[in-house]
Amino acid sequence: MAEPRFDVVGIGNAIVDVLAHAGDDFLAGNGLAKGAMTLIDAAAAKSLYQKIGPAVECSGGSAANTIAALASLGGAGAFVGKVRDDQLGEVFAHDIRALGVHFATPPSPDGPPTATCLILVTPDAQRTMQTFLGACVDLGPDDVDEGVIAAASVTYLEGYLWDPPAAKKAIVKAAKAAHAAGRRVSLSLSDPFCVDRHRAEFLDLIERHVDILFANEHEIMSLYQVDAFDDALQAVRGHCQIAALTRSEKGSVVVAGDEVHVVDAEPVAKVVDTTGAGDAYAAGFLFGVTAGRDLAQSARIGGIAAAEVISHMGARPDRPLRDLVREKLG
Amino acid sequence: MAEPRFDVVGIGNAIVDVLAHAGDDFLAGNGLAKGAMTLIDAAAAKSLYQKIGPAVECSGGSAANTIAALASLGGAGAFVGKVRDDQLGEVFAHDIRALGVHFATPPSPDGPPTATCLILVTPDAQRTMQTFLGACVDLGPDDVDEGVIAAASVTYLEGYLWDPPAAKKAIVKAAKAAHAAGRRVSLSLSDPFCVDRHRAEFLDLIERHVDILFANEHEIMSLYQVDAFDDALQAVRGHCQIAALTRSEKGSVVVAGDEVHVVDAEPVAKVVDTTGAGDAYAAGFLFGVTAGRDLAQSARIGGIAAAEVISHMGARPDRPLRDLVREKLG
Repeated sequence: MAEPRFDVVGIGNAIVDVLAHAGDDFLAGNGLAKGAMTLIDAAAAKSLYQKIGPAVECSGGSAANTIAALASLGGAGAFVGKVRDDQLGEVFAHDIRALGVHFATPPSPDGPPTATCLILVTPDAQRTMQTFLGACVDLGPDDVDEGVIAAASVTYLEGYLWDPPAAKKAIVKAAKAAHAAGRRVSLSLSDPFCVDRHRAEFLDLIERHVDILFANEHEIMSLYQVDAFDDALQAVRGHCQIAALTRSEKGSVVVAGDEVHVVDAEPVAKVVDTTGAGDAYAAGFLFGVTAGRDLAQSARIGGIAAAEVISHMGARPDRPLRDLVREKLG
Repeated sequence: MAEPRFDVVGIGNAIVDVLAHAGDDFLAGNGLAKGAMTLIDAAAAKSLYQKIGPAVECSGGSAANTIAALASLGGAGAFVGKVRDDQLGEVFAHDIRALGVHFATPPSPDGPPTATCLILVTPDAQRTMQTFLGACVDLGPDDVDEGVIAAASVTYLEGYLWDPPAAKKAIVKAAKAAHAAGRRVSLSLSDPFCVDRHRAEFLDLIERHVDILFANEHEIMSLYQVDAFDDALQAVRGHCQIAALTRSEKGSVVVAGDEVHVVDAEPVAKVVDTTGAGDAYAAGFLFGVTAGRDLAQSARIGGIAAAEVISHMGARPDRPLRDLVREKLG
């Protein structure tokens, strides 16, 4: 087996985030499900945008954030995702390539515009996301280059990818190509409502294809339809090789066969915006694992990456994570 | 004279800022004039964008930032400036309207895209700006609604407006309409190199039309071609009704006939990005003056607004300035 060119290739929805502050009364008044990711159409996106306050635009997308953070850690990343050939598509492509990430998915020349996610950050630093999938619906199996998949130690899939219908074939193609090349497949469950929408398919994929699973406590409890975190922990054990379960300020729990680690969260002076916390954790964990670190150290790197990302607005690191890890772990 | 509907109407280049971190070595390696605003064409903008790191996009533009900060202080603002009917034009229009600002300039249906300013923030928090004027070159006298000008206590012009050639007629039309309606005209000198490009026209405009002048120490020294701040202070005294001169951490000096105030800068825990400091100062000062505060208090409000804006990335306030002023001044 050839030496991998990439540590991780991510496949996900290519999205530009539109971040604004909002109060809980605004969420309630507009019927928005706090803390969740809700899909909206172009008309609803336009209408909501007109109601929200001044915003800033940052590249986003769950798996794209993970690959960006991986690159910021010093890892070699690739990304597959669909934008349109419009201004926001250029923003997305610039930001991920500027980190040295291989991004070669051709933009759609027509059809819906580049996807946007309206992210409302409440004073408690919680984020509520309304996603217009836009050009993401045009991602298909032709966008998956099996050579790139085979060249990556890990192929990382976001659960949100199950929302645009054509992407499923791309996912299965990628998972099969990864395993055929002797590589590993990783999945993030993304969101409890997303788990609700696609539970059977997720369980089937985990059973058949997933080696490394990421989920927060709400998502893993939703997946197994249980009411307690420990019940979910017992259920996932053995279901895939490694499961890394995040619990916000309670840190994370990593389970891999008989091995279990409970790792504290990294301290944060002030939590400003939790957008991208899980994405950054996955980046740190995968960076650790692909660099040959043990699971506990990998979880610690995940925690360091997440702590940086939640200390400012926006889902991507504001300073090189590589320096931060060096400071903290030496 | 009817009660004004607006405290300030700003006329300026309508720009979306693209903000990225960069080192001094990057500036030097790319021949960028640190701290200055340099005009670049579409090709240079594209080439530089490909070289810079990941960025965030925020609405900008000097006078637009001032009007945004004025609105954040609780003032009634209007803005005149040209975008295209593209995605970044929508971003600009959304952000300023979301603050309650009247913005009715029709976007260009064709021609160059919405203007962008590539802003590189160095570790010393200094900003270096490369502006592609884009659709701003299409601003002309037809975009100036004399009814809006007459309805504003102050018409505020940015010096950068002298760069797009067609805007000059718009400026003169606005200044005349303001004075015909018994209102005041204010000018910000924008940038020392901008002053170099348009010195004679600025001196003429100040002589004939400007009641309230804003400049930082470099700009005012450039205007009068003197080497010491105090020499510039003596020169500007009597040249227009009120001059508010900013000096970064040294605070500001306000001169109005025999009246002179030297006001300390507001303390800032950590200066992160100085982009928009002067714009925010002008907003605070004009908010004070139009609300009937005295000049020293108005300068203090300017300092409070500037201190907020330099404590984070981006030129516009991140939290309501009205609350901040209430906290500080009661």
